[in-house]
Amino acid sequence: MADDLKAIIRSVPGFPKPGIVFRDITTLLSKPEAFRHALDEFEAFFRRQGVNRIVAIDSRGFIFGGALADRLQVAFVPVRKKGKLPYTTIGAEYALEYGTDCLEMHIDGVQKGDRVAIIDDLLATGGTLEASCRLVEQLGGQVVAIAVLIELTFLNGRKKLAGYDILSLIDYDTE
Amino acid sequence: MADDLKAIIRSVPGFPKPGIVFRDITTLLSKPEAFRHALDEFEAFFRRQGVNRIVAIDSRGFIFGGALADRLQVAFVPVRKKGKLPYTTIGAEYALEYGTDCLEMHIDGVQKGDRVAIIDDLLATGGTLEASCRLVEQLGGQVVAIAVLIELTFLNGRKKLAGYDILSLIDYDTE
Repeated sequence: MADDLKAIIRSVPGFPKPGIVFRDITTLLSKPEAFRHALDEFEAFFRRQGVNRIVAIDSRGFIFGGALADRLQVAFVPVRKKGKLPYTTIGAEYALEYGTDCLEMHIDGVQKGDRVAIIDDLLATGGTLEASCRLVEQLGGQVVAIAVLIELTFLNGRKKLAGYDILSLIDYDTE
Repeated sequence: MADDLKAIIRSVPGFPKPGIVFRDITTLLSKPEAFRHALDEFEAFFRRQGVNRIVAIDSRGFIFGGALADRLQVAFVPVRKKGKLPYTTIGAEYALEYGTDCLEMHIDGVQKGDRVAIIDDLLATGGTLEASCRLVEQLGGQVVAIAVLIELTFLNGRKKLAGYDILSLIDYDTE
Protein backbone atom coordinates (compact mmCIF):
# COMPACT_ATOMS: atom_id res chain seq x y z
CA MET A 1 0.00 0.00 0.00
CA ALA A 2 2.95 2.35 0.60
CA ASP A 3 3.74 1.74 -3.08
CA ASP A 4 0.17 2.66 -3.97
CA LEU A 5 0.50 5.88 -1.99
CA LYS A 6 3.83 6.67 -3.64
CA ALA A 7 2.33 6.19 -7.11
CA ILE A 8 -0.22 8.93 -6.34
CA ILE A 9 2.39 11.56 -5.39
CA ARG A 10 3.08 13.97 -8.25
CA SER A 11 6.72 14.83 -8.92
CA VAL A 12 7.28 18.39 -10.14
CA PRO A 13 10.84 18.93 -11.44
CA GLY A 14 12.34 22.41 -11.07
CA PHE A 15 10.20 23.54 -8.10
CA PRO A 16 10.89 25.64 -6.12
CA LYS A 17 14.17 25.99 -8.06
CA PRO A 18 16.19 24.22 -10.78
CA GLY A 19 17.62 20.86 -9.72
CA ILE A 20 14.94 20.16 -7.10
CA VAL A 21 12.15 17.63 -7.70
CA PHE A 22 9.20 18.67 -5.56
CA ARG A 23 6.98 15.86 -4.25
CA ASP A 24 3.45 17.24 -4.55
CA ILE A 25 0.99 15.66 -2.09
CA THR A 26 -2.12 17.45 -3.41
CA THR A 27 -2.80 14.54 -5.76
CA LEU A 28 -3.01 12.29 -2.68
CA LEU A 29 -5.16 14.73 -0.70
CA SER A 30 -7.69 14.79 -3.53
CA LYS A 31 -8.19 10.99 -3.30
CA PRO A 32 -10.24 10.27 -0.16
CA GLU A 33 -9.31 6.59 0.03
CA ALA A 34 -5.56 7.42 -0.15
CA PHE A 35 -5.81 10.24 2.42
CA ARG A 36 -7.80 7.92 4.68
CA HIS A 37 -5.24 5.16 4.36
CA ALA A 38 -2.42 7.52 5.35
CA LEU A 39 -4.46 8.75 8.33
CA ASP A 40 -5.23 5.14 9.36
CA GLU A 41 -1.50 4.41 9.54
CA PHE A 42 -0.74 7.56 11.53
CA GLU A 43 -3.67 6.96 13.87
CA ALA A 44 -2.63 3.37 14.64
CA PHE A 45 0.96 4.53 15.33
CA PHE A 46 -0.16 7.33 17.65
CA ARG A 47 -2.49 4.99 19.55
CA ARG A 48 0.32 2.47 20.06
CA GLN A 49 2.52 5.25 21.43
CA GLY A 50 -0.13 6.51 23.87
CA VAL A 51 -0.23 10.04 22.43
CA ASN A 52 -2.33 12.64 24.28
CA ARG A 53 -1.41 15.72 22.21
CA ILE A 54 -0.66 16.35 18.54
CA VAL A 55 1.78 19.05 17.50
CA ALA A 56 1.40 19.92 13.81
CA ILE A 57 3.88 21.94 11.76
CA ASP A 58 2.68 24.84 9.61
CA SER A 59 1.21 24.47 7.07
CA ARG A 60 0.87 21.06 5.41
CA GLY A 61 1.23 19.35 8.77
CA PHE A 62 -2.04 21.05 9.76
CA ILE A 63 -3.97 19.03 7.15
CA PHE A 64 -3.03 15.72 8.77
CA GLY A 65 -2.86 17.05 12.33
CA GLY A 66 -6.44 18.37 12.35
CA ALA A 67 -7.84 15.06 11.14
CA LEU A 68 -5.75 13.05 13.64
CA ALA A 69 -6.67 15.26 16.61
CA ASP A 70 -10.31 14.67 15.62
CA ARG A 71 -9.85 10.91 15.31
CA LEU A 72 -7.95 10.50 18.57
CA GLN A 73 -9.87 13.18 20.47
CA VAL A 74 -6.70 14.82 21.72
CA ALA A 75 -5.46 18.41 21.72
CA PHE A 76 -4.21 20.00 18.47
CA VAL A 77 -1.22 22.35 18.86
CA PRO A 78 0.29 24.40 16.01
CA VAL A 79 3.98 25.13 15.48
CA ARG A 80 4.46 28.16 13.22
CA LYS A 81 7.10 30.45 11.79
CA LYS A 82 8.17 33.37 13.99
CA GLY A 83 5.58 36.12 14.43
CA LYS A 84 2.48 34.16 13.41
CA LEU A 85 1.20 33.02 16.82
CA PRO A 86 -0.58 35.76 18.78
CA TYR A 87 -0.02 34.76 22.41
CA THR A 88 3.20 34.36 24.42
CA THR A 89 5.55 31.95 22.66
CA ILE A 90 8.77 30.03 23.03
CA GLY A 91 11.10 29.74 20.03
CA ALA A 92 13.63 27.34 18.54
CA GLU A 93 16.09 28.16 15.77
CA TYR A 94 16.98 25.79 12.97
CA ALA A 95 19.48 25.97 10.11
CA LEU A 96 18.50 26.82 6.54
CA GLU A 97 20.72 26.43 3.49
CA TYR A 98 21.85 30.00 4.20
CA GLY A 99 21.29 31.37 7.69
CA THR A 100 18.68 30.32 10.25
CA ASP A 101 14.95 30.56 10.82
CA CYS A 102 12.83 30.30 13.95
CA LEU A 103 9.78 28.18 14.85
CA GLU A 104 7.43 29.10 17.67
CA MET A 105 4.86 27.45 19.91
CA HIS A 106 2.51 28.99 22.47
CA ILE A 107 3.77 28.57 26.04
CA ASP A 108 0.57 26.70 26.91
CA GLY A 109 0.84 24.43 23.85
CA VAL A 110 2.29 21.55 25.83
CA GLN A 111 2.17 20.71 29.53
CA LYS A 112 4.57 18.80 31.71
CA GLY A 113 4.13 15.05 31.27
CA ASP A 114 2.31 15.26 27.92
CA ARG A 115 2.96 12.39 25.50
CA VAL A 116 3.28 14.29 22.23
CA ALA A 117 3.14 13.26 18.58
CA ILE A 118 4.66 15.61 16.01
CA ILE A 119 3.28 15.49 12.49
CA ASP A 120 4.41 17.04 9.21
CA ASP A 121 4.13 16.15 5.55
CA LEU A 122 7.87 15.81 4.92
CA LEU A 123 11.09 14.69 6.58
CA ALA A 124 13.95 16.26 4.60
CA THR A 125 17.03 17.43 6.54
CA GLY A 126 15.12 17.12 9.82
CA GLY A 127 15.72 20.72 10.89
CA THR A 128 12.13 21.76 11.49
CA LEU A 129 11.22 18.47 13.18
CA GLU A 130 14.25 18.64 15.46
CA ALA A 131 13.42 22.24 16.41
CA SER A 132 9.82 21.18 17.10
CA CYS A 133 11.06 18.44 19.42
CA ARG A 134 13.05 21.04 21.35
CA LEU A 135 9.93 23.22 21.72
CA VAL A 136 7.92 20.31 23.14
CA GLU A 137 10.72 19.35 25.52
CA GLN A 138 11.29 22.94 26.70
CA LEU A 139 7.73 22.83 28.02
CA GLY A 140 8.23 19.47 29.76
CA GLY A 141 6.52 17.27 27.18
CA GLN A 142 7.85 13.97 25.85
CA VAL A 143 7.97 13.39 22.08
CA VAL A 144 6.77 9.78 21.79
CA ALA A 145 6.05 9.76 18.04
CA ILE A 146 7.10 11.62 14.89
CA ALA A 147 5.09 10.93 11.73
CA VAL A 148 5.54 12.18 8.18
CA LEU A 149 3.96 11.22 4.90
CA ILE A 150 7.21 11.45 2.90
CA GLU A 151 10.85 10.89 3.88
CA LEU A 152 13.74 11.96 1.65
CA THR A 153 16.11 9.30 2.96
CA PHE A 154 19.10 10.61 0.94
CA LEU A 155 19.13 13.74 3.14
CA ASN A 156 19.69 11.66 6.31
CA GLY A 157 17.21 13.62 8.41
CA ARG A 158 16.83 10.65 10.79
CA LYS A 159 20.38 11.19 12.01
CA LYS A 160 19.29 14.51 13.50
CA LEU A 161 16.33 12.77 15.17
CA ALA A 162 18.19 9.84 16.76
CA GLY A 163 16.31 8.34 19.71
CA TYR A 164 12.82 9.25 18.49
CA ASP A 165 10.22 6.82 17.11
CA ILE A 166 9.59 7.88 13.53
CA LEU A 167 7.01 6.64 11.03
CA SER A 168 7.22 7.64 7.37
CA LEU A 169 4.86 6.17 4.79
CA ILE A 170 6.69 6.97 1.54
CA ASP A 171 10.46 7.05 0.94
CA TYR A 172 12.57 8.61 -1.81
CA ASP A 173 16.21 7.53 -1.83
CA THR A 174 17.29 9.90 -4.62
CA GLU A 175 16.34 13.46 -5.60
CA MET B 1 -23.16 25.93 22.51
CA ALA B 2 -21.98 28.76 20.22
CA ASP B 3 -21.64 30.76 23.45
CA ASP B 4 -19.60 27.94 24.94
CA LEU B 5 -17.31 27.97 21.90
CA LYS B 6 -16.96 31.74 22.09
CA ALA B 7 -15.98 31.58 25.74
CA ILE B 8 -13.03 29.35 24.81
CA ILE B 9 -11.57 31.75 22.22
CA ARG B 10 -8.69 33.79 23.61
CA SER B 11 -8.65 37.50 22.82
CA VAL B 12 -5.16 38.96 22.41
CA PRO B 13 -5.20 42.79 22.29
CA GLY B 14 -2.52 44.52 20.21
CA PHE B 15 -1.81 41.61 17.83
CA PRO B 16 -0.66 41.80 15.10
CA LYS B 17 -0.60 45.58 15.71
CA PRO B 18 -1.93 48.19 18.14
CA GLY B 19 -5.72 48.64 18.05
CA ILE B 20 -6.44 45.11 16.80
CA VAL B 21 -7.86 42.43 19.09
CA PHE B 22 -6.78 39.07 17.70
CA ARG B 23 -9.17 36.15 18.24
CA ASP B 24 -6.89 33.21 19.07
CA ILE B 25 -8.43 29.82 18.21
CA THR B 26 -5.59 27.72 19.62
CA THR B 27 -7.38 27.56 22.98
CA LEU B 28 -10.31 25.90 21.17
CA LEU B 29 -8.10 23.55 19.17
CA SER B 30 -6.54 22.28 22.39
CA LYS B 31 -9.94 21.19 23.75
CA PRO B 32 -11.01 18.05 21.86
CA GLU B 33 -14.71 18.32 22.76
CA ALA B 34 -14.86 21.93 21.52
CA PHE B 35 -12.98 21.16 18.28
CA ARG B 36 -15.26 18.16 17.74
CA HIS B 37 -18.37 20.24 18.29
CA ALA B 38 -17.24 22.80 15.70
CA LEU B 39 -16.47 19.99 13.23
CA ASP B 40 -19.89 18.39 13.90
CA GLU B 41 -21.59 21.64 12.90
CA PHE B 42 -19.49 22.06 9.75
CA GLU B 43 -19.98 18.41 8.78
CA ALA B 44 -23.77 18.59 9.11
CA PHE B 45 -23.86 21.78 7.03
CA PHE B 46 -21.67 20.29 4.28
CA ARG B 47 -23.79 17.11 4.16
CA ARG B 48 -26.98 19.15 3.81
CA GLN B 49 -25.42 21.06 0.93
CA GLY B 50 -24.29 17.91 -0.90
CA VAL B 51 -20.60 18.84 -0.91
CA ASN B 52 -18.22 16.60 -2.88
CA ARG B 53 -15.01 18.64 -2.47
CA ILE B 54 -13.52 20.77 0.29
CA VAL B 55 -11.37 23.78 -0.51
CA ALA B 56 -9.37 24.93 2.52
CA ILE B 57 -7.56 28.24 2.83
CA ASP B 58 -3.94 28.33 4.01
CA SER B 59 -3.12 27.89 6.81
CA ARG B 60 -5.68 27.70 9.65
CA GLY B 61 -8.35 26.55 7.20
CA PHE B 62 -6.22 23.43 6.69
CA ILE B 63 -6.80 22.34 10.31
CA PHE B 64 -10.58 22.13 9.83
CA GLY B 65 -10.45 21.15 6.16
CA GLY B 66 -8.31 18.06 6.72
CA ALA B 67 -10.64 16.74 9.42
CA LEU B 68 -13.76 17.45 7.35
CA ALA B 69 -12.38 15.81 4.19
CA ASP B 70 -11.68 12.76 6.36
CA ARG B 71 -15.16 12.76 7.91
CA LEU B 72 -17.00 13.24 4.61
CA GLN B 73 -14.61 11.14 2.52
CA VAL B 74 -14.30 13.83 -0.13
CA ALA B 75 -11.32 15.48 -1.83
CA PHE B 76 -9.22 18.06 0.06
CA VAL B 77 -7.95 20.98 -2.05
CA PRO B 78 -5.62 23.71 -0.75
CA VAL B 79 -5.74 27.41 -1.65
CA ARG B 80 -2.43 29.11 -0.94
CA LYS B 81 -0.57 32.39 -1.30
CA LYS B 82 1.15 32.96 -4.64
CA GLY B 83 4.23 30.81 -5.28
CA LYS B 84 3.54 28.07 -2.73
CA LEU B 85 1.82 25.47 -4.93
CA PRO B 86 4.22 23.50 -7.13
CA TYR B 87 2.07 22.53 -10.11
CA THR B 88 0.27 24.68 -12.70
CA THR B 89 -2.05 27.13 -10.96
CA ILE B 90 -4.76 29.70 -11.55
CA GLY B 91 -4.73 32.91 -9.49
CA ALA B 92 -7.15 35.44 -8.04
CA GLU B 93 -6.21 38.83 -6.62
CA TYR B 94 -7.78 40.36 -3.55
CA ALA B 95 -7.43 43.71 -1.84
CA LEU B 96 -5.32 44.27 1.26
CA GLU B 97 -5.34 47.36 3.45
CA TYR B 98 -2.57 48.65 1.19
CA GLY B 99 -2.21 47.05 -2.24
CA THR B 100 -3.25 43.57 -3.35
CA ASP B 101 -2.25 39.96 -2.85
CA CYS B 102 -2.87 36.81 -4.86
CA LEU B 103 -4.28 33.40 -3.97
CA GLU B 104 -3.66 30.32 -6.07
CA MET B 105 -5.17 26.88 -6.67
CA HIS B 106 -3.92 24.00 -8.79
CA ILE B 107 -5.70 23.79 -12.14
CA ASP B 108 -6.82 20.26 -11.27
CA GLY B 109 -8.07 21.32 -7.82
CA VAL B 110 -11.69 21.50 -8.93
CA GLN B 111 -13.53 19.91 -11.84
CA LYS B 112 -16.58 21.04 -13.75
CA GLY B 113 -19.77 20.27 -11.85
CA ASP B 114 -18.10 19.87 -8.44
CA ARG B 115 -20.17 20.96 -5.44
CA VAL B 116 -17.55 22.72 -3.36
CA ALA B 117 -17.36 23.82 0.26
CA ILE B 118 -14.83 26.48 1.20
CA ILE B 119 -13.52 26.51 4.77
CA ASP B 120 -11.43 28.98 6.74
CA ASP B 121 -11.10 29.95 10.37
CA LEU B 122 -12.19 33.57 9.94
CA LEU B 123 -14.55 35.75 7.91
CA ALA B 124 -13.26 39.33 8.25
CA THR B 125 -13.56 41.61 5.18
CA GLY B 126 -14.33 38.60 2.98
CA GLY B 127 -11.50 39.27 0.54
CA THR B 128 -9.80 35.89 0.68
CA LEU B 129 -13.08 33.96 0.69
CA GLU B 130 -14.39 35.93 -2.29
CA ALA B 131 -11.15 35.32 -4.21
CA SER B 132 -11.39 31.62 -3.34
CA CYS B 133 -14.95 31.49 -4.75
CA ARG B 134 -13.64 32.97 -8.01
CA LEU B 135 -10.92 30.27 -8.20
CA VAL B 136 -13.50 27.49 -7.77
CA GLU B 137 -15.82 29.05 -10.35
CA GLN B 138 -13.03 29.65 -12.87
CA LEU B 139 -12.58 25.88 -12.94
CA GLY B 140 -16.31 25.21 -13.38
CA GLY B 141 -17.13 24.29 -9.79
CA GLN B 142 -20.10 25.54 -7.79
CA VAL B 143 -19.55 26.97 -4.30
CA VAL B 144 -22.45 25.47 -2.34
CA ALA B 145 -21.17 26.21 1.17
CA ILE B 146 -18.81 28.58 2.95
CA ALA B 147 -17.96 27.81 6.58
CA VAL B 148 -15.89 29.71 9.11
CA LEU B 149 -15.37 29.35 12.82
CA ILE B 150 -15.42 33.11 13.52
CA GLU B 151 -17.17 35.99 11.78
CA LEU B 152 -16.27 39.63 12.50
CA THR B 153 -19.72 40.96 11.61
CA PHE B 154 -18.70 44.63 12.02
CA LEU B 155 -16.49 44.28 8.92
CA ASN B 156 -19.50 43.32 6.74
CA GLY B 157 -17.68 40.54 4.90
CA ARG B 158 -21.01 38.88 4.01
CA LYS B 159 -21.81 41.77 1.67
CA LYS B 160 -18.92 40.70 -0.52
CA LEU B 161 -20.24 37.12 -0.47
CA ALA B 162 -23.88 37.82 -1.34
CA GLY B 163 -25.66 34.80 -2.82
CA TYR B 164 -23.55 32.17 -1.04
CA ASP B 165 -24.69 29.96 1.85
CA ILE B 166 -22.47 30.84 4.79
CA LEU B 167 -22.20 29.23 8.22
CA SER B 168 -20.23 30.92 11.01
CA LEU B 169 -20.21 29.50 14.52
CA ILE B 170 -18.98 32.50 16.53
CA ASP B 171 -19.70 36.19 15.90
CA TYR B 172 -18.02 39.35 17.12
CA ASP B 173 -19.95 42.56 16.46
CA THR B 174 -17.23 44.91 17.73
CA GLU B 175 -13.42 44.90 17.53
